[in-house]
Amino acid sequence: MNSRLKKILIKLGQQKLDALFVSSPANISYLTKTQSRDSYLLISNKGIFYITDSRYTEEAGLALEKSIKIKKINGSLPRFIAELFLDYGLKRIGFEEKHLSFSGYMKIRKELNKKIKLVSAPGIIEDSRQIKEAQEIKIIKKAIRITAAAFKFIEGFIRPGQKEIELVAELQRFIRYHAAGNSAFDIIAASGPNSSFPHHIPGQRKIRKGEPVLVDMGIDLLGYKTDLTRVFFLDKISAYGRKIYDIILEAQARALNKIKPGALTDEIDAAARQYITEKGYGGFFGHNLGHGVGLEVHEKPMISPKKSTRLKQGMIFTLEPAIYLPGEFGIRLEDMVLVTKKGCEVLSGAINK
Amino acid sequence: MNSRLKKILIKLGQQKLDALFVSSPANISYLTKTQSRDSYLLISNKGIFYITDSRYTEEAGLALEKSIKIKKINGSLPRFIAELFLDYGLKRIGFEEKHLSFSGYMKIRKELNKKIKLVSAPGIIEDSRQIKEAQEIKIIKKAIRITAAAFKFIEGFIRPGQKEIELVAELQRFIRYHAAGNSAFDIIAASGPNSSFPHHIPGQRKIRKGEPVLVDMGIDLLGYKTDLTRVFFLDKISAYGRKIYDIILEAQARALNKIKPGALTDEIDAAARQYITEKGYGGFFGHNLGHGVGLEVHEKPMISPKKSTRLKQGMIFTLEPAIYLPGEFGIRLEDMVLVTKKGCEVLSGAINK
Repeated sequence: MNSRLKKILIKLGQQKLDALFVSSPANISYLTKTQSRDSYLLISNKGIFYITDSRYTEEAGLALEKSIKIKKINGSLPRFIAELFLDYGLKRIGFEEKHLSFSGYMKIRKELNKKIKLVSAPGIIEDSRQIKEAQEIKIIKKAIRITAAAFKFIEGFIRPGQKEIELVAELQRFIRYHAAGNSAFDIIAASGPNSSFPHHIPGQRKIRKGEPVLVDMGIDLLGYKTDLTRVFFLDKISAYGRKIYDIILEAQARALNKIKPGALTDEIDAAARQYITEKGYGGFFGHNLGHGVGLEVHEKPMISPKKSTRLKQGMIFTLEPAIYLPGEFGIRLEDMVLVTKKGCEVLSGAINK
Repeated sequence: MNSRLKKILIKLGQQKLDALFVSSPANISYLTKTQSRDSYLLISNKGIFYITDSRYTEEAGLALEKSIKIKKINGSLPRFIAELFLDYGLKRIGFEEKHLSFSGYMKIRKELNKKIKLVSAPGIIEDSRQIKEAQEIKIIKKAIRITAAAFKFIEGFIRPGQKEIELVAELQRFIRYHAAGNSAFDIIAASGPNSSFPHHIPGQRKIRKGEPVLVDMGIDLLGYKTDLTRVFFLDKISAYGRKIYDIILEAQARALNKIKPGALTDEIDAAARQYITEKGYGGFFGHNLGHGVGLEVHEKPMISPKKSTRLKQGMIFTLEPAIYLPGEFGIRLEDMVLVTKKGCEVLSGAINK
């Protein structure tokens, strides 16, 4: 059995749980070291069970380690799961309250007798996932190198007159040829005033000379994601654009400067946010400074004014200060950072800013 | 106020609900006629409220009709929602149990006093969405024309020696240039024995002469999806391949023959499944015959042996009989069908089979 599963079994023991019913796809991928889809995982001392339907049993049989048994769903899913609990005599079963719908919970609950307790057990696996193992860091670094190549490619490709959507088309093609995975999320290409929408949907607008083009993209490599943003200027950057760009650069540098094991995430956020506010643009930066990245594009830790978590070595997250000026333009720079023993490493540092 | 919202308000009255809290993105897109993301919708006689955060308020302001008021989240989301219920004196509020996590439900519940009831009200909007309006059918037909062009393009492109992933790269690029939207889901390109995995993840495998290549793809046009599958044979189709292919063709024809308003979905499924079983391959067709398609790739009605729904004019769904022979190959043909006044129209009929 792999060490991740062993660790979770120990945690279950500590929480006096007989089992954990895992319904988050990213958590299942993490624990099985495969790219899981449309499946559930039941972890218990009586066995590790991978629950899926006929569409996936053949590939699961080839991909899963031997200690994980495949259970092919037949009939009603909630009843099938409830019967697994009963068959193996599991009494106290943890579930993932953020990854199970109200309806899913109620349907399983209905199939169980009163002796079986479903207990909310959030974050057990997510907490482990925050600290990346050496093997994971290696994959993420490779994914960032491919993303960097994609930025270099698009920097050479981009010309006035092209549509936003064409940039996305070329980037997706480039990523596929270089990574075998898809983009990690819908790529954003936002030109001119569209860049003031933090999550603009790329469209038919043609890029004009002299305006900023914001590109926010990430790839998926073996399930691991990247998430990076750069702003390109076609021709010369305006004085106003330059001013805002420099504020963002300095805000990011101030946040970076605070990152080391033991530092608090809200203080990292504050370092960037306070500087932006001092410069008079606090009202134009509405979102968090950053978020963890791994098997999900957004995962723990959040780098936010609202949450305070202590950083640990091995965490990987984004830093993405931004200023959005409605009707004018927006600037966001997003890098990915690894917390090291004494400070941090900007994993995406090789991409021009 | 648009007619979809009006219809839902009438249904709420019939169910004695003061309001409906909508958390399904597709349902929100349907009711607001915009492409909604990271938002919630509260429908009540006291007003229609679109709840989102600072990343989306600017674009929502431009996109939404005037009868829908934007509420910008500040602070805790569950508290913000609970306060909306309180401020407008809403007492019986329906929610979507499949689209709200157990955790989301519990957090909102905790913020409410006992006089306010949260009532599960599933399917109200999904039921409306099953019957496509003329305007929706027009968009879906256009989306299918673009998907057909993509199949034609890839049929001309495909050669032995190419990797599965390269087909996906070229298709994604083609779709972007022709539709402004993304693919509706991760495109499947499965060559040779990989085609026996119903949902194969395309990889580095090189396509060989004489083997089948299964391509399952769909696009997103203004939020509306397509979902179609064809199998290409490079060079000559084998006698065994031909035999299986013909069984699938006939199975699909038998199902098509049953489609008209009033027909039962499980009988449509049975028409294809029984034929495949008669031919000796029943054990190699594990999934449903089809599913509705619209703002979601999979929506109501399900064409399944387990569920019986009466077809109505305006429904659009897939028919995708298949035979998967592990270690050998798989054949699936997937078309999209519109239920008409007296029978049906194969919307994807122009794509070669």
